Amino acid sequence: MRNIKLLIEYDGTNYSGWQIQKNANTIQEELLKAIYKITGENVNLNGSGRTDAGVHAKGQVANFMTNSQLTQDRYADAINSKLPEDIVIRNSCEVPLDFHSRYDAKGKRYSYTIYNSIHPNAIGRDYVYHIRHCDKLDINKMIKASEHFIGTHDFAGFMSVGTSVIDTVRTIHSINIHTNKDIIKIDYYGNGFLYNMVRIITGTLLYCGLSKIEISNIDEIINSKDRKRAGATVPAKGLCLEEVFY
Amino acid sequence: MRNIKLLIEYDGTNYSGWQIQKNANTIQEELLKAIYKITGENVNLNGSGRTDAGVHAKGQVANFMTNSQLTQDRYADAINSKLPEDIVIRNSCEVPLDFHSRYDAKGKRYSYTIYNSIHPNAIGRDYVYHIRHCDKLDINKMIKASEHFIGTHDFAGFMSVGTSVIDTVRTIHSINIHTNKDIIKIDYYGNGFLYNMVRIITGTLLYCGLSKIEISNIDEIINSKDRKRAGATVPAKGLCLEEVFY
Repeated sequence: MRNIKLLIEYDGTNYSGWQIQKNANTIQEELLKAIYKITGENVNLNGSGRTDAGVHAKGQVANFMTNSQLTQDRYADAINSKLPEDIVIRNSCEVPLDFHSRYDAKGKRYSYTIYNSIHPNAIGRDYVYHIRHCDKLDINKMIKASEHFIGTHDFAGFMSVGTSVIDTVRTIHSINIHTNKDIIKIDYYGNGFLYNMVRIITGTLLYCGLSKIEISNIDEIINSKDRKRAGATVPAKGLCLEEVFY
Repeated sequence: MRNIKLLIEYDGTNYSGWQIQKNANTIQEELLKAIYKITGENVNLNGSGRTDAGVHAKGQVANFMTNSQLTQDRYADAINSKLPEDIVIRNSCEVPLDFHSRYDAKGKRYSYTIYNSIHPNAIGRDYVYHIRHCDKLDINKMIKASEHFIGTHDFAGFMSVGTSVIDTVRTIHSINIHTNKDIIKIDYYGNGFLYNMVRIITGTLLYCGLSKIEISNIDEIINSKDRKRAGATVPAKGLCLEEVFY
């Protein structure tokens, strides 16, 4: 038995998210079908975590056990030949049998991309959240607000309902906000993120940039653990799982 | 009567090109339908030039005559509200009655984007031409080869059949090749381009980078006016009409 680790990129636009489910088109199911065509095995595919419908990934990680004997780096090309073009294996390698993509993950990096312009974009429209607050949005306020999220906090107020997570304490190592013309890109690096946490923090930072939330209230909002006090959940399509750290 | 000029961005992936035609989904037709909904008029829409199926534009220009009385810059929002999300008017303004998007164009800028990586990309796959010549492609050879195309030449050998153009002399002002990780972006600026000319020159530059064509033969290949001696026509999806100059 061998344990194969995959590094996966996908365009989440046409999928109901990562996790396999009945009557829905999912990334996990496409991968399982492709792996079956290559190995002849119905494997268990452990992802590092779920991504929601419309969320993208450049660095999702998953692993599966197999008796197949392909050279480790050949799995990528072989599986790619059976995948639709919006899912691509970027790398494959054999790892120790006890490696588990989810349990062993020590950190994750997500990006959230905002397109701030009077008119929406046609090219690349599935990868950004379009807003038209051109002159009104204060990026410096967003940067200052982001500093309040760094560190270890109970992020219970920055989680959507519908998960059974008990421990809502997470550590955010860094939040970096870059702008390039109309594009605002926010990079989040932390030890893990709750359900919708990146999208709710992004919505809160946007509210700070628009002076709908005062920066001086952020600490209190975090401590309140009250979802209603944080900002809106921004759309899925701006979110991308960039990297998983082990 | 007023003459309205539109600056148009589109994702050409799902269209049979710019030019309206029977039994095909075209960008011009979508624009005409949207303009009709706003003005109640069946206008003539003059584009600066055709783009092929799958070719994109960030800066296509078109103009139409109308009796409608909207404030000039409101046409953009109004027409956008009637367009599919892969076509966006970025700007609208009133211009002198004798302005014509095609006849008055003095120059154009196109970009061609290549993704040079072992595996294809999932995210943004409709906007790049994927090749897997990672170590074999010599970018410096491509840059040196590009210099031979600068200036005024008869580009008859760099044109696909199927057009009725008589004068095949064009002037290329500059070709700039930038690389960023796996991305190679080639910017072309000239007074005009023949049918498929940018795609055939790009294919020829790639052949030079792969040593399939020797740089020392380029001048002779141009002078031969023989399409068969130039490189392959690279795929439409890497091409984007960036800007039209007046």
